[in-house]
Amino acid sequence: MFTLNSNRKLAEEMAELLGCTLGRSSVKQFSDGEIQISIEESVRGSEVFLVQSTSHPTNVHIMELLIMIDALKRASAKVINIVVPYYGYARQDRKARSREPITAKLVANLLVSAGASRIITMDFHSPQVQGFFDIPVEHLTGIPILSKYFEEKGLEDIVVVAPHNGGVVRARKMASLLNAPIALIDRRRPEHDTTDIMNIIGNIQGKNAIIVDDLIDTAGTITTGANAMMEKGAKAVYACCTHPLLSGPAVSRIESSSIKELVVTNTISIPEEKRSGKMTILSVGPLLVEAIDRVHNKKAVSPLFE
Amino acid sequence: MFTLNSNRKLAEEMAELLGCTLGRSSVKQFSDGEIQISIEESVRGSEVFLVQSTSHPTNVHIMELLIMIDALKRASAKVINIVVPYYGYARQDRKARSREPITAKLVANLLVSAGASRIITMDFHSPQVQGFFDIPVEHLTGIPILSKYFEEKGLEDIVVVAPHNGGVVRARKMASLLNAPIALIDRRRPEHDTTDIMNIIGNIQGKNAIIVDDLIDTAGTITTGANAMMEKGAKAVYACCTHPLLSGPAVSRIESSSIKELVVTNTISIPEEKRSGKMTILSVGPLLVEAIDRVHNKKAVSPLFE
Amino acid sequence: MFTLNSNRKLAEEMAELLGCTLGRSSVKQFSDGEIQISIEESVRGSEVFLVQSTSHPTNVHIMELLIMIDALKRASAKVINIVVPYYGYARQDRKARSREPITAKLVANLLVSAGASRIITMDFHSPQVQGFFDIPVEHLTGIPILSKYFEEKGLEDIVVVAPHNGGVVRARKMASLLNAPIALIDRRRPEHDTTDIMNIIGNIQGKNAIIVDDLIDTAGTITTGANAMMEKGAKAVYACCTHPLLSGPAVSRIESSSIKELVVTNTISIPEEKRSGKMTILSVGPLLVEAIDRVHNKKAVSPLFE
Amino acid sequence: MFTLNSNRKLAEEMAELLGCTLGRSSVKQFSDGEIQISIEESVRGSEVFLVQSTSHPTNVHIMELLIMIDALKRASAKVINIVVPYYGYARQDRKARSREPITAKLVANLLVSAGASRIITMDFHSPQVQGFFDIPVEHLTGIPILSKYFEEKGLEDIVVVAPHNGGVVRARKMASLLNAPIALIDRRRPEHDTTDIMNIIGNIQGKNAIIVDDLIDTAGTITTGANAMMEKGAKAVYACCTHPLLSGPAVSRIESSSIKELVVTNTISIPEEKRSGKMTILSVGPLLVEAIDRVHNKKAVSPLFE
Amino acid sequence: MFTLNSNRKLAEEMAELLGCTLGRSSVKQFSDGEIQISIEESVRGSEVFLVQSTSHPTNVHIMELLIMIDALKRASAKVINIVVPYYGYARQDRKARSREPITAKLVANLLVSAGASRIITMDFHSPQVQGFFDIPVEHLTGIPILSKYFEEKGLEDIVVVAPHNGGVVRARKMASLLNAPIALIDRRRPEHDTTDIMNIIGNIQGKNAIIVDDLIDTAGTITTGANAMMEKGAKAVYACCTHPLLSGPAVSRIESSSIKELVVTNTISIPEEKRSGKMTILSVGPLLVEAIDRVHNKKAVSPLFE
Amino acid sequence: MFTLNSNRKLAEEMAELLGCTLGRSSVKQFSDGEIQISIEESVRGSEVFLVQSTSHPTNVHIMELLIMIDALKRASAKVINIVVPYYGYARQDRKARSREPITAKLVANLLVSAGASRIITMDFHSPQVQGFFDIPVEHLTGIPILSKYFEEKGLEDIVVVAPHNGGVVRARKMASLLNAPIALIDRRRPEHDTTDIMNIIGNIQGKNAIIVDDLIDTAGTITTGANAMMEKGAKAVYACCTHPLLSGPAVSRIESSSIKELVVTNTISIPEEKRSGKMTILSVGPLLVEAIDRVHNKKAVSPLFE
Repeated sequence: MFTLNSNRKLAEEMAELLGCTLGRSSVKQFSDGEIQISIEESVRGSEVFLVQSTSHPTNVHIMELLIMIDALKRASAKVINIVVPYYGYARQDRKARSREPITAKLVANLLVSAGASRIITMDFHSPQVQGFFDIPVEHLTGIPILSKYFEEKGLEDIVVVAPHNGGVVRARKMASLLNAPIALIDRRRPEHDTTDIMNIIGNIQGKNAIIVDDLIDTAGTITTGANAMMEKGAKAVYACCTHPLLSGPAVSRIESSSIKELVVTNTISIPEEKRSGKMTILSVGPLLVEAIDRVHNKKAVSPLFE
Repeated sequence: MFTLNSNRKLAEEMAELLGCTLGRSSVKQFSDGEIQISIEESVRGSEVFLVQSTSHPTNVHIMELLIMIDALKRASAKVINIVVPYYGYARQDRKARSREPITAKLVANLLVSAGASRIITMDFHSPQVQGFFDIPVEHLTGIPILSKYFEEKGLEDIVVVAPHNGGVVRARKMASLLNAPIALIDRRRPEHDTTDIMNIIGNIQGKNAIIVDDLIDTAGTITTGANAMMEKGAKAVYACCTHPLLSGPAVSRIESSSIKELVVTNTISIPEEKRSGKMTILSVGPLLVEAIDRVHNKKAVSPLFE
Repeated sequence: MFTLNSNRKLAEEMAELLGCTLGRSSVKQFSDGEIQISIEESVRGSEVFLVQSTSHPTNVHIMELLIMIDALKRASAKVINIVVPYYGYARQDRKARSREPITAKLVANLLVSAGASRIITMDFHSPQVQGFFDIPVEHLTGIPILSKYFEEKGLEDIVVVAPHNGGVVRARKMASLLNAPIALIDRRRPEHDTTDIMNIIGNIQGKNAIIVDDLIDTAGTITTGANAMMEKGAKAVYACCTHPLLSGPAVSRIESSSIKELVVTNTISIPEEKRSGKMTILSVGPLLVEAIDRVHNKKAVSPLFE
Repeated sequence: MFTLNSNRKLAEEMAELLGCTLGRSSVKQFSDGEIQISIEESVRGSEVFLVQSTSHPTNVHIMELLIMIDALKRASAKVINIVVPYYGYARQDRKARSREPITAKLVANLLVSAGASRIITMDFHSPQVQGFFDIPVEHLTGIPILSKYFEEKGLEDIVVVAPHNGGVVRARKMASLLNAPIALIDRRRPEHDTTDIMNIIGNIQGKNAIIVDDLIDTAGTITTGANAMMEKGAKAVYACCTHPLLSGPAVSRIESSSIKELVVTNTISIPEEKRSGKMTILSVGPLLVEAIDRVHNKKAVSPLFE
Repeated sequence: MFTLNSNRKLAEEMAELLGCTLGRSSVKQFSDGEIQISIEESVRGSEVFLVQSTSHPTNVHIMELLIMIDALKRASAKVINIVVPYYGYARQDRKARSREPITAKLVANLLVSAGASRIITMDFHSPQVQGFFDIPVEHLTGIPILSKYFEEKGLEDIVVVAPHNGGVVRARKMASLLNAPIALIDRRRPEHDTTDIMNIIGNIQGKNAIIVDDLIDTAGTITTGANAMMEKGAKAVYACCTHPLLSGPAVSRIESSSIKELVVTNTISIPEEKRSGKMTILSVGPLLVEAIDRVHNKKAVSPLFE
Repeated sequence: MFTLNSNRKLAEEMAELLGCTLGRSSVKQFSDGEIQISIEESVRGSEVFLVQSTSHPTNVHIMELLIMIDALKRASAKVINIVVPYYGYARQDRKARSREPITAKLVANLLVSAGASRIITMDFHSPQVQGFFDIPVEHLTGIPILSKYFEEKGLEDIVVVAPHNGGVVRARKMASLLNAPIALIDRRRPEHDTTDIMNIIGNIQGKNAIIVDDLIDTAGTITTGANAMMEKGAKAVYACCTHPLLSGPAVSRIESSSIKELVVTNTISIPEEKRSGKMTILSVGPLLVEAIDRVHNKKAVSPLFE
C-alpha cells in the first residue's frame, strides 16, 4: 500500500488497521512546480493499493496520482488499485450548458489511460459516474456511517432533508436507515428576478432536521437552509456529508449559522485551522480497509453495501 | 438521412420537414432471426444521419443500429450521426446492486466501437449518461415541448410532481418553465414490511398536478400516485413524459386511473392498439430537424436548449 | 461456469461432466424488452466460463451475452472465457456486395469491447473468422463427431458431398476421416434466366452420399440436392451438420425429402416440436468440457484438433 | 500519389492514366539493412494514394509500407489510402494447426496501427480477409480481366478448374462469366501413405481446361494437375491467376508442363528473367485507376464489381 | 484561436499578428481548487488553435489544457491544434533511475487521450519527445531567433558553450549558425566525494562565451559555469535559452553572477518582479503565427526549420 | 524461453546459464519470402521470454519477432517478454528533417500492437526511446561491461572520447566508471563548403583514448577520428560499443585504421568473416540472464543498473 500527499493521515490509519507499513516513496515538488516521484522499494509483480483523495489542491493531487500510476506501471506492478476516498471534479459529470467539459469523465479517462486497474472510492456526486469507468469500481458510501452516528446519538423526531433537488435519492437512503420521513429544500429563481427563492417542501415543524449531502463545499445552501428551517419551526438542524471540502467561507458560515452540529468523514483531511467545536469527524478507514482486504483476498465486496 | 425500423413514421416526418428523401436501404430479418442490411445508394464521403429509437424490441433495434453503422463505416461514409430519439437501457446507468452490469454504458461503448461519430438524442434517464460517450452528444429535451402544451392549455394552479425521488430535478425544470411549485411522491418500504408506503410531499390541495417523468413504462407509480393525489384533494392530475414505452399493463392502468390526460411525444412509435382518448401525442420532429440542420451546417445547437 | 438462456440443457450436461454446478445468475426480460441480468454469487478473481449459443433469437442472445460479460467485468472476474457453441451471424463474414456490413466481424469486435478474454467455439462458417479476433480462439470442430457416427454405423461406398462451392474443404476433411471420395453440388444461374441449375459434380452412382455442412438453415439446397442425387442413382442420401438452425420450412422440407437421416449436434437446442424420426442428435458436451478443462488447467488444447 | 519500391512500373502506368506525376520521395536501404524514407514535397492536408505490393521480398516491402505510412501521418497527410495490388501473407489467414500465427490479420493490424485510412487491394486468398480490417476495404478482383481475355480469345468447350478444394468458389465465379461448367482437382493423402493422390472431379474430356487461382507460387499443383488433365483427355490446359508470385521452381515447372498458356496480371512485377513465351501479362492499372478516381471523387466504387 | 491562462500576453500578440480576435472563453478556479471552463462561442466544425504553455503552476496549466480540450471535443470542434510554446515536464523523458515515471510521455498520452489533434511546440528538452506522440508534432526551435540576436549584436570571437553533457548537440546547432566553435561544461562527482567538479572542455580564452540551453530553471549550473569561465580567461559570458523558467533563486543568482546578458524568449511569461536589466526578451510570436498560418492553410511548415 | 533466428548463439548461451532448454519452434522462410512460424510445444498460461535482436536483415528480423508474438498471443501465452539485445531502427528516434518517419516509435507501436507485454533491451541510441513504450522496459547497459574490461586491462592515463556531439552523456558515464576525463570529436561543415571539419575538443595528448558509442555501423567517424587523435598526440586509441553492426566497409576501415583494439559485446552476432584480430567480444549473456531471472521471480531489476 502506497499513499500520496492528499490524506496521509487516513492512509496511515488504514495501514495500521491492515497491519502493514506504507510503501516507501517520495513525492517532491520542484521550485518550478513540477512533481517528482520516486518509489523506493520494488513493486514488481505486486498488487498495489494507492491512496489519494483528489481534494484541494485538486489539480496537483490528480497529477500526483497520474504520475504515480505511470511510475508503478513502468515498474511492473501487477495490479494498480487506486483508493480515492474523495473523487474531485465529480460534480462536473454532465454538460449543464453548451460547450462545457465533462471533467469527471475526463479524469476517469486519464486515470485509466495512465494505467489504473481498479478504483475504490466513496459517494460520487451521482452514482452514474460509476459508468464513466470500464475498469471495476468499488463504490462505497459513507451514508451508513453517518446514519449510525445519529442513530447512536438517540435523536428522535427526525426528518432527513435534501439540500437541493438532486439530493432527494440520497436523503431517502439515509431516511430509510433512520426510519424517518424526508423533506426537500427547493430553490428556484423566478423570471425577471435576480435572487433565488428558497422553499422547504415537506414537514419539518418540531423536528430534528438532518441535512445530508455528498459534499459540503462553500456551505451556502445548507446554512441559509438551516436558518430557514429554524424559522419555520424546526427543533434543531444538523448537517452531515461524506466529503468535507469546506472551502472559502464554509467554516465561518457554519459557525455563525443555526446548524447545531456538522458531522463529516475523513475522506478529505481537514486542517486544524478549519476545525470547530461544531464539527464531528467520523473515520472511513475501517470501511476502506475492509474493502481493500476483500479485494486483495478475492472475497465479495458486496456485504459492505448492505 | 437513413432510417431503420423502429420509428419510420417519425423519420418520414423529419425527412419531409428537411425537404429531403430518406436514403434507400433495406433491413430484413431472416427466418433464423439474423438481420440483413443493405444500403442501396452510395454514401461515400457523405455525412449521414441515421434515425433509430432503441425501443421495444430493444435488442433487435440495437443490433439493427450497430449493423447499419458497420455497413456505413465500411461503405466510407464520412460522418455517421446517429439520431436516437429514445435511448433504450438508459435506466441501467449505474450498479444499483453488486454484480450488475451498467448496460447504458455498454451500449454507448458498442455504438462508438461500431463507428458512430455523434449521437443526437433526447432526455436520458440521467443527464450523466452524456459522459458515457466521448463522441459529441447533442442531448435535447422534450420538457419545453410538454410545458408549452400545458401553458397553451391555460391550466392554472399548477403543481409539478416528481413521481419518484430521482425525478425532482426534472420536475423543477418543468415547474420553472410553468412558474409553478413542485411536489414529490416519496415511496419507501418500512423495515420488516413487504409493501411500499407512498407519501406525497409538498402541497397539492386544490391544484392541477402534472406528473412529469422521462419515460412511462408500466405506469404503476404514476397511476397509484395519481389516485393518491386525487384522494388528498388535488383538483385534477395530468401526466406527461418524453418517452411513451407503455409496456405491459400501462395503457389499461392509465385508462382506469384518475389521470385526466397523458401527454407524450413521438420519440417512440405508439401502435394504434395502445392509443386511447386520454392520450395526446406531440411531435419532436421539428426539434430533431432543427438539431440536424444545425449540426449539418455547423451552427451552434445551443439555442435549442434555451 | 455460468450459462445464459440459449442452450441451458447443454450447459447443464457440461456442468455435470465437469462435476461442478452452474453459477447462480438470473436473466430476465422486462415487459419493455430490456434484459436484466444479475449474478448471485461472487466472481471476484475467478476464471469464468460463460456458455451461450448466439442462435435464434440471435439478437437477444447476443445482447444477453454482451450484458453478462459487462457484468462479469465490473464484478472483477479475472478471466472471462465465452463458450459459444454456435456463433450466429458467421455467414456475414465478408462484403458479398457493395455497402454490406461484415456482421461476423462486428460481433467479434463487440464481444472483445465488452470484455471477453477468450472464445471457445465450433465450426465457424469460414475458418478465417478466427482472425476476426485478437483474443485467443479455441476453434473446435464437430466433423470428427459426425464422421465417427457414420463410421460406427458401418456405411460402405460412401461419397461425401459438399452442398455448395464453398463447402468443398469441409467435405474433403470429412471424406479423409471416412477414407472416401468427394462430390459437389454446383448451383449456377445462367444468364437471362431466373432459376438456378443444379449440377452434381463427381461420382455418386450407387453410393451412400453424405451431405455435410457447417449449418443447415432453411434446408433448401440439401433437400433439392438430395432428391437430385437419388434421381442420378445414389443408393441413399444422408445429411449432417454441426449447427442445426432448422429455421422456417426446414423440418417439413427434410421430412418430405429423400434424405434418409439427418445427423446434427446439440450446439443449438432443438425444441421438441422441431424434432422428427429422421433426426439423430449427437452431443458436443464432452468435447467442450475437455476443452474447458484444458484451458482451465493450462494444458494444450491441440490434441482436440486431431 | 506516391509509390514505394515493389512495383514502380505499375505505379507509373497508373500515374500516367491519371494524368498526374508520382510524388517525390526517396526510399533507401542503408548498409545495415535499415530503410530510410524521406518525402520530398508537402503532403499536409492531402489525400494520399500510396502504391505498394507486399510481394517478394515481402518483409522489406511491408516495412517500407509501414514506415511510409508513419512518415505521411506525421507529415499531416489528411487521408492515407494504401493501394496494395498484391497483399502478401494473405494465405496465413487462419490457424491451420495449433499455435500458428494469423499473419494476414497481424499485417492488417500493423497497417491500421501505423495509420492507414483505407486499403484498395485485389483478390485476397479468402474474401473474409476483408473483415480483418475495420477501415474501408475496396476489394477488387482480376477475374473479369482474366475471363475477358479468354472470351476474346474465342476458346470453346471451356471448363474452369479449381486447383484445390478451397478454390471452387473462384472457379464458379469465372465459369459463370464464361458460361462454362467447373471441375476440381481434389488432392488427398490416404492414411499410412506419404504421397498425395490427385483426383479430377468433373468432366474435362475434350475440353479446354482453364485452371484459375488467386495466386501461383511454386506452381507445383497446377503443373502436375495440368499434366494429369491432359492424360485424362483434356484438349488443352490453360492456367491463370491474378498474382504471379512464381517463386522458386515455378517458371521452369510451367515451361516443362503441358500448360499451353499462363495468363496473369501485373499486380506483382515479374522480372525479365522470369518471363517466358507461355506467359501473357494483363494490366490491372486501368481498374486500379478507376477505383482511385472514384474514391477520390466520392463516387460509388460498386460499379467496378459488376 | 483560444487561449488559456498561462501566457495570455503572447496569445494576444499572436492574435494581433494573425489579424483575428481571441475566442471568448472563461476559465475560473473555484474556492475548492477545481477549474471551470466555458466556451462562449460556437466552435462546431472549426479548426481550433489553443495556446497554453504548461509552465508554473504546471499541474494547473496541464489540467486547464486537458479540460479545455475535452470541452472543445464535446462541442464538436473539427480539429484541435494545441499550441504549447513551453512543454512542461519535458525533462522527465526517460527513467533515469529505477521505478521513475516518464512524465513527459504520460502528459503526451493524456493530451492525446483528451482529444488533441496536433501539437505545435518549441524546443523539447530532447528532440525524441516528438516520438512520444503519434499525432503530428510541429517542433519549432528558438535557436535561430537567439542566434540572430547575437549575430546582429556584432559579437566577435564567439564560442558557444553547452552547460552540460546532454546539451552539446544544441550548442553545435547554434555554433554552426554563428560559424563558431563549441565548448562544454563537464560536471562530474569523483567517487567518495560529495561535491561536483566542474571542468571546461574546449578553448574559451579571450572569447565571448555564449551558454545555450533549452531552458534555465534555477540557474545553478550556468551561473557557476559563467564564473568559472571568467576565471579561466573568457572575455565575457552571455547566456541564452528558449524557455525562461527562472524558478527559485534563478534571478538573484543571475544578477550576482558574471553573466553579462541573459537572452530568452517569451514562451513563458516572465512576471515583472522577475525581470532585471540583464535580461533581453525576444518574441516567438511571429514564428508561432507563421506556423499556425501554414498549418491552417495546408502549406508546408518545413521552411520554418531552415 | 524461445529464440528466433537473429542471434541463436547468444540465446543458447543464455539458456545454458539459466539451466533450461530453448522452446521448440520452427521459423522458415518460403521461396516467396514469407515467414512461417510454428511453435511445437504448449505455451498456454506460460510466461515466455523471446530472444531476438532486430539486427541485419532488420526488416526480416522485426517481422519474425512480430509474427512470433502473434502466434504466442493466439496460443494463450500469459506474458510475452521480448528480449531484444539490439533494437534496430533506434537511430530513427526523432524527425531530423521534415516529413521523416520516427521509425523507432513505429516499431515500438508495432511490437505492442502485436501483443508484447514487456521488453528487455540494451543501450538504446537515446534513453528517451524508453518512453516510446507504455509497457515496462528493462533498459540495460553494456557500458559497465566495457568499462570493466578496460579497467582489468590496467590502462592508465585514460580519456574517454565521444565520437559525436550526441555521445557526450554516454562518454561521461563510462569516464566516471573509469575515473577519467572526457573529450569530444566535433564535426561540422562550414558554410559554402562540402566537407566536414573534424575538431577534437578536450585534452588527449599522451593519453590512451577510448572512443565509446552505443553502436558502430560503417565505422567512418571513429576511424577518421582515431587517426586524427593519433596525429594530435594520443598514445593509443581504443574503440568500444555495445552493438557491433559493422556494416559495409566497417571491418576493413577498422583494420586499416590506427585503432589498436575494438571491444564489443555479442548483442549482435558477428559472422566469422567479419571478425579480426583487433576485435574483442564480451558476452552480455550473464547480464540478460540475471535480468530474466529477476523478472521471472518478481525481484527488483534495479541492482543491475548500479
